[in-house]
Amino acid sequence: MKVIKEAYNWRYATKRFDANRKLSHEQVETLLNAARMAPSSYGLQPFEIMVVENDDLRKQLQEAAYGQQQLTEASHVMVFAANKTVDEALVDSFMQRVAKSRGQSMESLKDFRNMVLGSVSGKSEQGKFQWAARQAYIALGFLLATAAIESIDACPMEGFNNAEFDRILNLEQKGLKSVVMATVGFRSADDKYAGLPKVRKTQDQLFTFFK
Amino acid sequence: MKVIKEAYNWRYATKRFDANRKLSHEQVETLLNAARMAPSSYGLQPFEIMVVENDDLRKQLQEAAYGQQQLTEASHVMVFAANKTVDEALVDSFMQRVAKSRGQSMESLKDFRNMVLGSVSGKSEQGKFQWAARQAYIALGFLLATAAIESIDACPMEGFNNAEFDRILNLEQKGLKSVVMATVGFRSADDKYAGLPKVRKTQDQLFTFFK
Repeated sequence: MKVIKEAYNWRYATKRFDANRKLSHEQVETLLNAARMAPSSYGLQPFEIMVVENDDLRKQLQEAAYGQQQLTEASHVMVFAANKTVDEALVDSFMQRVAKSRGQSMESLKDFRNMVLGSVSGKSEQGKFQWAARQAYIALGFLLATAAIESIDACPMEGFNNAEFDRILNLEQKGLKSVVMATVGFRSADDKYAGLPKVRKTQDQLFTFFK
Repeated sequence: MKVIKEAYNWRYATKRFDANRKLSHEQVETLLNAARMAPSSYGLQPFEIMVVENDDLRKQLQEAAYGQQQLTEASHVMVFAANKTVDEALVDSFMQRVAKSRGQSMESLKDFRNMVLGSVSGKSEQGKFQWAARQAYIALGFLLATAAIESIDACPMEGFNNAEFDRILNLEQKGLKSVVMATVGFRSADDKYAGLPKVRKTQDQLFTFFK
């Protein structure tokens, strides 16, 4: 589909947002819905997303992100935070969602519960966190792809002090750790990065075909 | 955009593919282009994608994936493999792409090169690999979101013997390790999972708003 291809060429990691332009409520909904509907391993969704509009908080986050301008110029800052661990409580809250969505009893989900717990139990604590973080990145991918298709600008950002972000957003007490964020809004006409040619591996560099 | 929302509701982790239906060349291109255009930290793209159609290889991969039927029934198997490490050679090959795409000299990119190497040098070997893997997951997200919009079925899969996959696809000698795969094609009319209600966190469970 040509439209999608053009959208992915149009997008870029926006450095300067137009601080005067805000996403509509509907646009925010569209982005968040994309992240919410993204798949995750077993459907666990071992992460949460902090949606920051508050100016004072954004200034604090900016300081913890080496002063990067997107934090205060973008329309919204969306911080992806992964669960520090994947434990029985997390799996049980997932099972409750399964039971509710599919009209099943918890009893009937016992085998599924044990299977998920069994697969998780083989991982170290650090392994569980890394696994949770990867699931958040799938959702980030859905959000960024959707933004491009909707002509919404975005910049994925990993360059920030995670511990400071966790403190500012009270993530520790929720059992979460910040892993990545997307600043979203509309590019400024002044952003000289908008016009730079994209740098990507060629098909030969990225793909190997086994026919 | 309603179309996107419907597409994300339509998609699901396909368990049974119609083994008789193959993606067109154009559809494969569309999916791979989505993965290729996905953003990554600095633009490094520290991963590659193995696109497997060969029947014999697919049977071998299936054995290393606990016999899961998607491996042989899907149209294509796309294995994402992350770079085991992020070293000077990888950063230099990226810088060559930057120089070529943007008509710059390697000399003029010296500061950028040092900045990227400096940021990487703070990570452990395991940290570099995990970081590379996360970038691959953004590309996976782009591929899966695009598949849904294009009415192509897909199943992201982590449940396989990574070391066996690495051996079968000769990833070790390329400095790569398999991290996740997407099987893609068209759902079988027999797949009872297609009709199950989606299980997702509610907006309140997934998002916290700081207004």
